[in-house]
Amino acid sequence: MHSIKIIIIFSVFFFSLNSFGQVDRMEPPFWWSGMNTTQVQILFYGQDIADYEVLSEDISILDISRTENSNYIFVTIDTANKEPGAYTLHFKNDGKTAYSKVFELKERKSGSASRSGFDSSDVIYLLMPDRFANGNPDNDTTKNTIENVDRSNPGGRHGGDIQGIIDHLDYIEELGATAIWSTPLLEDNEPVYSYHTYAQSDLYKIDPRYGSNEDYQRLSAAMHQKGLRLIMDYVTNHWGSKHWLIEDLPSKDWIHQWPEGFRRSNYRMTTQFDNNAAKVDAKGCMDGWFDTTMPDMNQSNPMLLQYITQNAIWWIEYADLDGLRVDTYSYNDKEAIAQWTKSIMDEYPNFNIVGEVWMHDQAQISYWQKNSKIGAITGYNSHLPAVMDFTLHDALGTMFNEDNSNWNEGMIKAYENFANDFLYPDPNNLMVFVGNHDTNRVNHIFQSDFNKYKLALTLILTTRGIPQLYYGDEIGMLGDKDNKGDGDIRRDFPGGWAGDSQNAFLSAAVAGGRTKDQQTYFDFTKKILNWRKENSVIHSGKLLQYIPQDNVYVYFRYNDDHRVMVIINNSLKNHTINTQRYKEGLQDFKKGTDIITDSNMDLTSQIFIPAKTPMIITLK
Amino acid sequence: MHSIKIIIIFSVFFFSLNSFGQVDRMEPPFWWSGMNTTQVQILFYGQDIADYEVLSEDISILDISRTENSNYIFVTIDTANKEPGAYTLHFKNDGKTAYSKVFELKERKSGSASRSGFDSSDVIYLLMPDRFANGNPDNDTTKNTIENVDRSNPGGRHGGDIQGIIDHLDYIEELGATAIWSTPLLEDNEPVYSYHTYAQSDLYKIDPRYGSNEDYQRLSAAMHQKGLRLIMDYVTNHWGSKHWLIEDLPSKDWIHQWPEGFRRSNYRMTTQFDNNAAKVDAKGCMDGWFDTTMPDMNQSNPMLLQYITQNAIWWIEYADLDGLRVDTYSYNDKEAIAQWTKSIMDEYPNFNIVGEVWMHDQAQISYWQKNSKIGAITGYNSHLPAVMDFTLHDALGTMFNEDNSNWNEGMIKAYENFANDFLYPDPNNLMVFVGNHDTNRVNHIFQSDFNKYKLALTLILTTRGIPQLYYGDEIGMLGDKDNKGDGDIRRDFPGGWAGDSQNAFLSAAVAGGRTKDQQTYFDFTKKILNWRKENSVIHSGKLLQYIPQDNVYVYFRYNDDHRVMVIINNSLKNHTINTQRYKEGLQDFKKGTDIITDSNMDLTSQIFIPAKTPMIITLK
Repeated sequence: MHSIKIIIIFSVFFFSLNSFGQVDRMEPPFWWSGMNTTQVQILFYGQDIADYEVLSEDISILDISRTENSNYIFVTIDTANKEPGAYTLHFKNDGKTAYSKVFELKERKSGSASRSGFDSSDVIYLLMPDRFANGNPDNDTTKNTIENVDRSNPGGRHGGDIQGIIDHLDYIEELGATAIWSTPLLEDNEPVYSYHTYAQSDLYKIDPRYGSNEDYQRLSAAMHQKGLRLIMDYVTNHWGSKHWLIEDLPSKDWIHQWPEGFRRSNYRMTTQFDNNAAKVDAKGCMDGWFDTTMPDMNQSNPMLLQYITQNAIWWIEYADLDGLRVDTYSYNDKEAIAQWTKSIMDEYPNFNIVGEVWMHDQAQISYWQKNSKIGAITGYNSHLPAVMDFTLHDALGTMFNEDNSNWNEGMIKAYENFANDFLYPDPNNLMVFVGNHDTNRVNHIFQSDFNKYKLALTLILTTRGIPQLYYGDEIGMLGDKDNKGDGDIRRDFPGGWAGDSQNAFLSAAVAGGRTKDQQTYFDFTKKILNWRKENSVIHSGKLLQYIPQDNVYVYFRYNDDHRVMVIINNSLKNHTINTQRYKEGLQDFKKGTDIITDSNMDLTSQIFIPAKTPMIITLK
Repeated sequence: MHSIKIIIIFSVFFFSLNSFGQVDRMEPPFWWSGMNTTQVQILFYGQDIADYEVLSEDISILDISRTENSNYIFVTIDTANKEPGAYTLHFKNDGKTAYSKVFELKERKSGSASRSGFDSSDVIYLLMPDRFANGNPDNDTTKNTIENVDRSNPGGRHGGDIQGIIDHLDYIEELGATAIWSTPLLEDNEPVYSYHTYAQSDLYKIDPRYGSNEDYQRLSAAMHQKGLRLIMDYVTNHWGSKHWLIEDLPSKDWIHQWPEGFRRSNYRMTTQFDNNAAKVDAKGCMDGWFDTTMPDMNQSNPMLLQYITQNAIWWIEYADLDGLRVDTYSYNDKEAIAQWTKSIMDEYPNFNIVGEVWMHDQAQISYWQKNSKIGAITGYNSHLPAVMDFTLHDALGTMFNEDNSNWNEGMIKAYENFANDFLYPDPNNLMVFVGNHDTNRVNHIFQSDFNKYKLALTLILTTRGIPQLYYGDEIGMLGDKDNKGDGDIRRDFPGGWAGDSQNAFLSAAVAGGRTKDQQTYFDFTKKILNWRKENSVIHSGKLLQYIPQDNVYVYFRYNDDHRVMVIINNSLKNHTINTQRYKEGLQDFKKGTDIITDSNMDLTSQIFIPAKTPMIITLK
C-alpha cells in the first residue's frame, strides 16, 4: 500500500510541471520505412490529450484509441509503402489545430530485415554493465536519476557503463567470446537497488548512468566492427514502479492489479500448462508481481502488447541488435508473449531470441521452444527460437564435485541431460552455461579448483548449443549467492575502475595485471574459445555420446568433414580407455591432437586420460 | 562361460531320454475357435522333427518353417472360421505318415473378446505367491523341480502357493482390494533363488510348487465369483536359463548372444530414444542380460515374437485374465514389444496391460504409454495402455519424511508430479503405488509412523490412477531392501503357514490374530478401500490441485455429480485453512463429511486440520 501512495503523490507533482495542451511524450519517437510492422501504434501523452482529434494529410490513420486516462491517445498509422520522411499529425480541438507533431520514418539500414541472430557458432559473454567497467566517471550519478553512485554498497550503483564495455571490447575479443549479452541498460529509476536494471522506468531510454542511446549505438557499431554480436536483455513481464507509464497508467489493466496492492508471484510456472492446476494458482503465478518494485505487466492488453512489441523492434532496428534475451519469459501471459515473439521473428526471420525459462524438467523447458511437440500437447507454440538449458546448469552445479562413479552421480548427469535432447525441437538453440548473474559463481561451486573449471568449460564449450560465460569466471572470480547474496556474484571486474589496485583486463606479464592464477584461468578459456571459433563442427556438428564409465565421459561432435572426440575424466583416478568401444565415433581415424595440450595422440588402441582432466581431440 | 557349459551337458542328457521320431512338445497345446488371432504358429519339438513334412486334411497350413536346429518345426495353421474341434496334423517321411498329432480348437468363453481389463475403479493387491500363504504343503518340494523348500533362507522357496491365495480371498475382499497382481507363477526351475519366478523355464506351465494350470483357473474363477480381477505378471524380456527352449535353442538368435557368453545390461533405458546415444550402448541396454540366469530374449525374431504373443493370449483366454503386468517393459526391443502389445489389445480391445517402465522422468515414462505425444517425437507408439507412476513413487519415498514447508520439499513433490500429467496420454491409466516387491517397504521408509502411512495411503487412494498396494503393508509389515536385500521386503505373511505363531489374516478380536498395531493399519486401509470402491468420482473424476502451502496439500476429485476434497497436512503443526481459496473446487458446497473420521464439517469459512493428518471430505 505504501508504494501506491508514493505513486499518487509523484504523479501530481509531475503534472504540475507540464503546461496544458502539449505532447509530453510520443512513443515510439520514430519508425522506419519498409518495415514488416507497418501499422505503428503511436502513444501520445499529455494532459487531457484524449480530448483532441488527431488528423494527418500525410499518412493514413487506421485507428485512434482512447483509454480511461485522458492523458493518453493511441494513434495507429499505416506506414506501408511510405518513403522515409517526416509525417505530420495534427491535434485539433473544436476543428482547429492546437498543435502538430512530426513523426519521422527513417531509412532502414540495408539488410536489416535479414540480419542473422546469434547462434551456436557464438560464445556469449554475459556482463552486468554497472559492474564491468566504468568508462565514464562523469555519469556515475546524474541529475535526473534518483540513486547515486556508492561503490561501497554491494547492492548499490557502482558506476560501470557502456563506455566501460566499449573500452574493453579488445579484452573480450582476445578472450574469444563472439557475442555480448549485457543485463538491461534501459533506465531503472528505483531509489535503491537499481543497478540490476530489471525495474525499468523508460523503455526508450538508456539509463543515463550507463550513457545515452547514442552510446548504445556506438557500442553496437564498435562490436560489429570486431565481428562481435550484441544481445539485448529485454523485460516484458514487469516494469519498474518508477516507469512514467506506471505512475500514470493509461488504464488500470496495463498492470495486474491486486486488491491488497501488491501480491508476490507464487513462482510456480507449472501452472502455465498443468491441466490439473487451480485457476487461482495460475493467476497467482502469471499475474503475481515478481517483486515489490516490479509491477506485473498485463501483456494480454492489446495496446500494451503492441507497445512492447514495437519497443523491442525499435531497439533491434535502432541499435542494430543481433539478439534478445528475454527475462522471466515463462511468467508472461503465454499467448501474448508468443504473439510478441512471433511479431519480432516475423520482422527479422533470421534473428534469435533466447527466453529465460528457469525450470528443472526438460519437458517443461522444451514446452517453451518454438514448435515444441510438448507445447503442442496443450496447443501452445511460443515461437521462441531459443531457451536456456537450466537442467544442464543444475547438473553442472554438482557433478564435478562428485568424484566417484555412481549410478546417478558425476558425469552421468551430463549424459542424462543430453539423453533427453529429443524432447527439444532444436537442441542447437539451447543456451548452455555454468552460471549467470542469478546463480552461484562457478569458481565458488568448485572452491577455486582450476581442474574442475577446465572440466566444466570443456563441456559447455564443446557440447551442442550456445555457450554462455559470465564475466569474471574467466579469471577465477568468486561469488557466493547462497550465503552472501546477489552483490557477491556481481562484484566489480578488477581493473574496470580507475584506481583499482589491480587490472585483470591486462596480462600477467604487465605490472598490475592479472595474477598468475587469473592468467591460468584466462589462458585456458582463451585457448578453447579461440579454437572453438574456427571449428564449425562444434557449432553445428551432431552429438554422439557414450554412457560414462568410471566417471569418464566420452562424446563426439561430427559432420561430414570433421570429427572431434571429447573425453572428460571427472574421477580422481587416471584412466586408460579402450578405443574399440568408440568405433562409431572414431570411424577409421587413428590419430588426433588434443587441442588443450597440443599433443598428438595415437587412437588405435588405448587413450590415457589423467584424473580430473579434459581432452578435446581433433581427429586426423 | 560356466553357465553355457551346463546348458550343453544338460541338452545331451535330455535327448538321451527321448525316443526318435516323436513330438515331445507342442505349443500352444491348443487354441480356441473364433479368435482374432487366427493364424496360429504351432511349435513342434522332437528329435530331428524338421526332417518331416507336415500335412493336414482338416485345416489349412499357411506356413512351415524350419530353423537351424532340426529338433524344431513351426507350423502355422489358419483357424479362421474353424469350428471348435480336433484337427489332425500328419508328420510324413518319404510320403508316409510317421505319426499324427491332434490340435484342438476349444470353444471360447462367451464375451471373452470384450472382457474389460482392470482400471482406475480398482485397487490392486500385489503379492508374491511364495511368500503369501502356503495352502498346500504337499507341493512345497516336487519331483520335477530343482530347488526345494527352505523357509529359513530369505532367498529360498518358502512354500506359498495358489491354494494359499485362494484360501485368503476373503481377506483380500474384506480389505477392499478389487484386483490381485501376483508376481509370476509360471515354472522357474533355477537351482537357487527361484522363488521370485522371473526366470521362467516353461511358459505353458504353472510352477508345480505353486500348483497346476487348473489351480490357476480355479483361482481365477474363485476371484471372479467375488468380483475380483486377476492380473498376470508377464515376462517378455528374458526367460530362465533352465527354460527347455533355451537349453536347445531353435536358433541362436532367439536370445541375444554375446562373445563372452554373458553380458549384463547397462540398464540405461534412455538409449531407447536418445538420438545422441551410441549404438553400442543402445545394444548394451536392450540386448544385455538382466541377470546371469536370465538370457535376454530377442523379440525381433518373428518366431519368438509370435511365440510370446500367442502365449500371452493363451493365458488370458485359458485363465480368464483381467490384465497383464509386463516386467521390464522398456528393456525389450521396442518395436517388437509394441507389436506384441498391439496384438494382445487387438484380441481384447477393452483389456488392460501395465508395463514396468522404471524411469525417473515423466516424459520418459510417458514415452511408453499408448499414443504418447512424446513417443511420437521419435515415431514410436507402444500401444501399451498403462504405465507405472515411478516418479510419484520416487516422491512418496521422501516427501512424508519432510515435515517443513520448503520450495521443493514435502507436499510440493506430489503437486509437481501431477503438474506434469499433461505429458501423459492417459493419466487415469497410471498405476500409483508407494512400494512393491522391488522397493523398500512403505512402513520401513516411514519408520512405522502410522500417521505417515495414513498420509501416503490417502494420497494414492484418492489421486488419479490405479492404486496398487503391496501385501502386508496393510498390517504395517517392514522390509529394508537397501540394507537387508530382497528377502527382507518379501517376508512371509504372518499366518500364511500352518503353525505360524501369529495369524494376521485374522482380526485382533480373535486369539492369535492381528496385533493391535496391525489391526490399526488394517482398519484404516480397509475403511478407505471400501469407501473408494463405491465412489466413482475417485475412479474417474477430474483432478483439481492447489499449490501446497505450509506443507498442506489440497486437491479435489470431481465429476458432474460428486465432489471430494482431500486435505493432506504433512507438517508437524496443526493448520487452519481458509476455504475461500478453494472456491473453484468447493463450488457452492458448504458442508461435507470426512470419511476417515466420519465427522461432518462446515466448509463455509475455515477448516482445521491437525498435524500429519489427512482428510477425505465428501461434499454435500
